[in-house]
Amino acid sequence: MESTLIKRISSWIDEHGSSELTFLASLIQEPSVQGNEAGAQKSIAKKFTEMGLTVDTWYPDAEILAKHPVFHSNRTSFDSSPNVVGVWQGTGGGRSIILNGHIDVVPEGDPSQWSDDPFSGYIVDGRVFGRGSSDMKGGIFSAILAVRSLQALNIRLRGDVILQSVVEEESGGAGTLSALLRGYRADACLIPEPTDMRIFVSQQGSMWFRIRVPGVSAHGGTRYEGVNAIEKGMYLIQGLQFLEKQRNDRMDNPLYRHFQIPIPINVGVFHAGKWPSSVPDHAVIEGRIGVGPHETWDSVCQEMESFVHDWTQRDPWLREHPPAIEWFGARWMPSEIDVSHELTTSLVNGFRHVLGRDPIVEGAPWATDAGLFTHVGKIPSIVFGPGTTRLAHYPNESVAIRDLFDAAKVMAATLIEWCGVSSPR
Amino acid sequence: MESTLIKRISSWIDEHGSSELTFLASLIQEPSVQGNEAGAQKSIAKKFTEMGLTVDTWYPDAEILAKHPVFHSNRTSFDSSPNVVGVWQGTGGGRSIILNGHIDVVPEGDPSQWSDDPFSGYIVDGRVFGRGSSDMKGGIFSAILAVRSLQALNIRLRGDVILQSVVEEESGGAGTLSALLRGYRADACLIPEPTDMRIFVSQQGSMWFRIRVPGVSAHGGTRYEGVNAIEKGMYLIQGLQFLEKQRNDRMDNPLYRHFQIPIPINVGVFHAGKWPSSVPDHAVIEGRIGVGPHETWDSVCQEMESFVHDWTQRDPWLREHPPAIEWFGARWMPSEIDVSHELTTSLVNGFRHVLGRDPIVEGAPWATDAGLFTHVGKIPSIVFGPGTTRLAHYPNESVAIRDLFDAAKVMAATLIEWCGVSSPR
Repeated sequence: MESTLIKRISSWIDEHGSSELTFLASLIQEPSVQGNEAGAQKSIAKKFTEMGLTVDTWYPDAEILAKHPVFHSNRTSFDSSPNVVGVWQGTGGGRSIILNGHIDVVPEGDPSQWSDDPFSGYIVDGRVFGRGSSDMKGGIFSAILAVRSLQALNIRLRGDVILQSVVEEESGGAGTLSALLRGYRADACLIPEPTDMRIFVSQQGSMWFRIRVPGVSAHGGTRYEGVNAIEKGMYLIQGLQFLEKQRNDRMDNPLYRHFQIPIPINVGVFHAGKWPSSVPDHAVIEGRIGVGPHETWDSVCQEMESFVHDWTQRDPWLREHPPAIEWFGARWMPSEIDVSHELTTSLVNGFRHVLGRDPIVEGAPWATDAGLFTHVGKIPSIVFGPGTTRLAHYPNESVAIRDLFDAAKVMAATLIEWCGVSSPR
Repeated sequence: MESTLIKRISSWIDEHGSSELTFLASLIQEPSVQGNEAGAQKSIAKKFTEMGLTVDTWYPDAEILAKHPVFHSNRTSFDSSPNVVGVWQGTGGGRSIILNGHIDVVPEGDPSQWSDDPFSGYIVDGRVFGRGSSDMKGGIFSAILAVRSLQALNIRLRGDVILQSVVEEESGGAGTLSALLRGYRADACLIPEPTDMRIFVSQQGSMWFRIRVPGVSAHGGTRYEGVNAIEKGMYLIQGLQFLEKQRNDRMDNPLYRHFQIPIPINVGVFHAGKWPSSVPDHAVIEGRIGVGPHETWDSVCQEMESFVHDWTQRDPWLREHPPAIEWFGARWMPSEIDVSHELTTSLVNGFRHVLGRDPIVEGAPWATDAGLFTHVGKIPSIVFGPGTTRLAHYPNESVAIRDLFDAAKVMAATLIEWCGVSSPR
């Protein structure tokens, strides 16, 4: 790769990037929580049009999606949630790439915990603030900025670049699934989720479970006449802790060796009882189980159900009154690409050229739409972007402008190597 | 005691009791849940008037009650919750007695779990059904029937009989406290709560606690970056189980020896988390701790707070982030009367004469307003009545008509022995 080219791209982004930040701020100011993405998507489509891309805006078809085996969502309509794709056609003969980002953001939570309006898009101390700044309107911005820099410098690529702004990533990926079903394919996919500038070549999937634990009600003064569903729930949680250890003990994927627990089981919800002096006759446990890159949804369901069955055999009450396991809500597929895959190489090279150091290459503790690209689209996928998940779903979410620009530069360099440049300038 | 007198009372009740049951049914048909007792109390006052008693109906004064050290209630007004007292004056020279019952009932819960309308007062298979039938409109009915039988047979007592129908027993006793503050006193008190025809000479009190357990939120995929409040709550519950054992190991009151756990700690509520894939940063535990007859509210608070403090010292997180204990909601005082007290003797004798067998005399696993009579009123108190708490707070609550009549007979016999009969017939 020509280092002069990289330098010109870097200079252009350093010079023009700041004036583009108003676009990111306006994007954050559109509160594109689930079901409310249309405003932000209109801005994206307008931007794509200005960039001369071939723009495609459509509403995912809930009926068609519902028939797909990997669709898991409570939504029955996407009438207010359009996808937007902009294609920058290559001159031919090069490899194509999808740059995929999701426009949906998680709810802002309690506004009083924010220093400012959660949807301010306020810029201070070299950071852009607001819900979605890190996860992942910042990443979408960087991808756009990468293409803009190439266009501004009259660099034409051989392969197509397909910019995607999809809905529903936070709820299981219906937006990306719809884009795949609409026929969008490419030789590779890069998702600029907030990896804190690390390169994720592997990701764990996840599934949500709900366990309903039965008990028998009684007056608290004679609590031994009942069966306390809280105690039985605690016994089950102890089982899940054991299962987590068992699963992680056999997890030998080197990309996950730096994680304290590579594929955690998180118990996120425990609800039981309404009255202090009654024995609760029902407890509900909800959680998330990580799905290793070598695993499938089915294999994880099976392992956990069989474990819980065996675990309950050791408790006389639960043996006779087995808890019910439901797999509910959204679910995400795991994904992995070989470390020596050319997509990895292109991204690692781009990173080195731009930033003059080696990137961290590892597995991700959470899932993105990469699982859908890998398994449904058969498209090798990789995740790299500005921002960090440490801030992503919390108050005062923000992203560093430095990272936004660096990520854009790395992506531009990657596009050059992956798609090829059509003619020397 | 003249056994002919007992026989006449028994015969009268057997003969006329059934026609009185319509009164109990109509009482049950008044859904006298907290704040809605006025209708049922009007029926009681009407009945007392018909019986020739001196009737006193009043609304407890929330402002005066609030100043009393044993008042624990969330209510700031009792404008819809009158107390009713009816005094049957004795001829003089005898000991007086209060027959105290509460008119308030616990909510009916989910009506679909009832075979019939929860407030039907339906009579079938020798039982009266409906919320409050057992706890304790049945007991009030028996007390009234006892006095009615004496009146019908022209038996005049020397001591006064003070029939009380109070509100708020289910929520901590504000009704009885108000009756005490109004000046009602007697030489003894009998409360016909549903003891399943056993005689409770002792009762445990109880208090409600709430423990707020802190944690640190994190994404479930990197759950080890947070502190799961559910796990910390489980650790605390294990502590409470240990404390319960410790407290009961030293409980040597023979009246409680037949209870599996004489003074239980019941964990009735455990709530934490809202999202399966987040680490919950807050858990709430609510429960009830039994207060032994030898204990005070203060001593129990102190023991539990000190225990929880010590227990948390063994957990590095909780040591630095101590959980907060609140004592909230209603609370009940323990109570005890000597087994050889003359009130006990009168009731045991009455039971033997009427039913021809020895009663079971023991401690109660739950509290009644007897604690208030004992500690605030300095009135020796005893609990005995028809119905059972196994059914009391549950769907399809009911009471056996046989027990209603037997309890009335035993109470009438007790009144004769305790209050004395003014002249032979």
